[in-house]
Amino acid sequence: MLPKGFLVNGVKAGIKKNGKLDMALFYSESACNAAGMFTSNLAKAAPVIISRKYLIKNPKNIRAVVANAGCANACTGKLGLENAQFECQAVGANLNLKPYSVLVASTGVIGQHLPMEKILKGIETLSVNVLKNKSDEKSASQAIMTTDTFAKTSFRKVNGTTIWGTVKGAGMIHPDLKPLHATMLSFILTDAKIDTKTLNNALKEAVENSFNCVSVDGDTSTNDTVVILANGKAENKISTENFKKALNAVCLDLAKMIAKDGEGATKLIEVLVKNAKSSKDAKIIASTIATSPLCKTAIFGNDANWGRILAAAGRAGVNFNPEKTDIYLGSLLVAKNGAAVDFSESAALKILKKNEVKITMDLKAGKEKSIYYTCDLTFGYIKENASYRS
Amino acid sequence: MLPKGFLVNGVKAGIKKNGKLDMALFYSESACNAAGMFTSNLAKAAPVIISRKYLIKNPKNIRAVVANAGCANACTGKLGLENAQFECQAVGANLNLKPYSVLVASTGVIGQHLPMEKILKGIETLSVNVLKNKSDEKSASQAIMTTDTFAKTSFRKVNGTTIWGTVKGAGMIHPDLKPLHATMLSFILTDAKIDTKTLNNALKEAVENSFNCVSVDGDTSTNDTVVILANGKAENKISTENFKKALNAVCLDLAKMIAKDGEGATKLIEVLVKNAKSSKDAKIIASTIATSPLCKTAIFGNDANWGRILAAAGRAGVNFNPEKTDIYLGSLLVAKNGAAVDFSESAALKILKKNEVKITMDLKAGKEKSIYYTCDLTFGYIKENASYRS
Repeated sequence: MLPKGFLVNGVKAGIKKNGKLDMALFYSESACNAAGMFTSNLAKAAPVIISRKYLIKNPKNIRAVVANAGCANACTGKLGLENAQFECQAVGANLNLKPYSVLVASTGVIGQHLPMEKILKGIETLSVNVLKNKSDEKSASQAIMTTDTFAKTSFRKVNGTTIWGTVKGAGMIHPDLKPLHATMLSFILTDAKIDTKTLNNALKEAVENSFNCVSVDGDTSTNDTVVILANGKAENKISTENFKKALNAVCLDLAKMIAKDGEGATKLIEVLVKNAKSSKDAKIIASTIATSPLCKTAIFGNDANWGRILAAAGRAGVNFNPEKTDIYLGSLLVAKNGAAVDFSESAALKILKKNEVKITMDLKAGKEKSIYYTCDLTFGYIKENASYRS
Repeated sequence: MLPKGFLVNGVKAGIKKNGKLDMALFYSESACNAAGMFTSNLAKAAPVIISRKYLIKNPKNIRAVVANAGCANACTGKLGLENAQFECQAVGANLNLKPYSVLVASTGVIGQHLPMEKILKGIETLSVNVLKNKSDEKSASQAIMTTDTFAKTSFRKVNGTTIWGTVKGAGMIHPDLKPLHATMLSFILTDAKIDTKTLNNALKEAVENSFNCVSVDGDTSTNDTVVILANGKAENKISTENFKKALNAVCLDLAKMIAKDGEGATKLIEVLVKNAKSSKDAKIIASTIATSPLCKTAIFGNDANWGRILAAAGRAGVNFNPEKTDIYLGSLLVAKNGAAVDFSESAALKILKKNEVKITMDLKAGKEKSIYYTCDLTFGYIKENASYRS
């Protein structure tokens, strides 16, 4: 369900050792207002540096994003920067686009150089497909996957305007995306008529409550990138409010898919911290619980070990009163005022065995809240990550 | 090798379901100058609150510490506090000690009440042993173990003064011990003639570079406690410098044992960050690497994945230049100026397969350094923690 005027596709360029789809192109037939958010990691990958630069230079005339999986082009020095720029130039040459109108993103192993011969052939095939008006959402969203087990897309259609997005990411997931800064990759396309300022604000707000509230392993990547392209081809002008609502919904859909598909995950975990003094306090506590290995393995083991949840909150660095705090698993109260209640273990087990588990912590200190998304920590995570590079 | 004038022993009180040793008593025949450091977790366990209180009230006349494993007496409300106090009173009654001269520590499952009947019987047996002059370091150090696979003790003897210490801890290990604040438990006994002020300073310094530089899983416990008792029975007065040196050595020995025996660990990992602008910067970066699941699983998998190490450093929140940073595994240079070098994979494999792996990061930004100790993240960790409470 792509918005009007966009073509996307994915190809096998031979970067991934397993021969799967590994390059994607997101293309607009006309100039787009664009906004992006990038990783705040100091070790920024070359494509992050280049895309950020182009976006600052040329925010009202972005035409395409080229992305690859299998090699992150991170920690690759001067040659890495040259390679990323060369990718943009190659897309431009094939599709007759101006310099700085093509963005670039990479994901995969850190510290290795892009196989440029394969990359350039990939770009050629992707461009030929676009010129032939071939478009295929499925292959594009599959081509950016690394350890993901399913392709992730979502869309909303409101008042004739469509917002479509895809995301990849299963490990090294703890996005800390900053405007013009953000290995999750997400590409969002819309035919909304919207100016760049409103687009930037809308993206920032949507990311803050979605991608910036997801953690798989607490490891913020060198390559995290979210880019939104708006080509203005929709029939009607959408209200800012409606646009924001739809964009929030698409980003939240995608963010939850990341947590659900976290490396080795068997469960999506939603951590709600409510009645906090501030939403910032709530978010810090929720993220500490969501990144606690002890909490995450307990949920994997269907263990209603609420003591670990309270202990994680207690080390979050935020001031609150543990002795006033209640904890729920699903709708089951397991701790009241920081101490045990006599709950039914079988009821807890039933809740914990579901593939979506909600933890609620009520601080009874104020009116603010925050929700953080994560997954359980399992044997599968260890298996995946003890052998990734080799 | 206990210092003069101390008796210690451990018994089976029936708190642990597996019937192993689970209560220990550390006893001095005469009054001790004492110092303690406790967890900074907001959710402080009852024994932490009580021991801290007694230590503030009575730092020059501490006579004993009673400890149990199997139940943490954390998140247990008013009854938990009463039970902890009652333990101290019971030891006092059995051994004719004044109020506030007995400290208490617990470790085990959070949110459950102590089985007081068993505890009181345990205290009686421990006291009878002491009155009969029975002392047994091995049983005392075993009795405080939870998921530990070996008992941990260390000592130094300098100029006729002995410092002996024991520690427990394998999971929920990321001590953030503050003076009069610190589930690792450590009890250090010495016959040194030393005043409480010097003792406090020496303990603070030793802990900062040992227990506060260890992480198994990043989860700071509700019960962490280090207590040192000095009874002044040594023949000579030891110099403060020599005392500090020996205490540092004992604490570092014990801290490294914790990392080596981390839940599921197959390797001790030492992370050295050097040539930083400040030792604080170095410590933050080293601890971020030491708590990165991706770095820890890579080491488990013998994967020289230095990109994960640089990525973890980059998200530490400390300003440094990744493009000037070198990384070594053992003595093997694997990344220079933030980019790959052509190192021998077989040489790296040989280094990674050892049961002690040293990671060195050279920031080339200053002259300060910090060392952090951790372990690999393995299938064993998941197995241990997916089924702990039940």
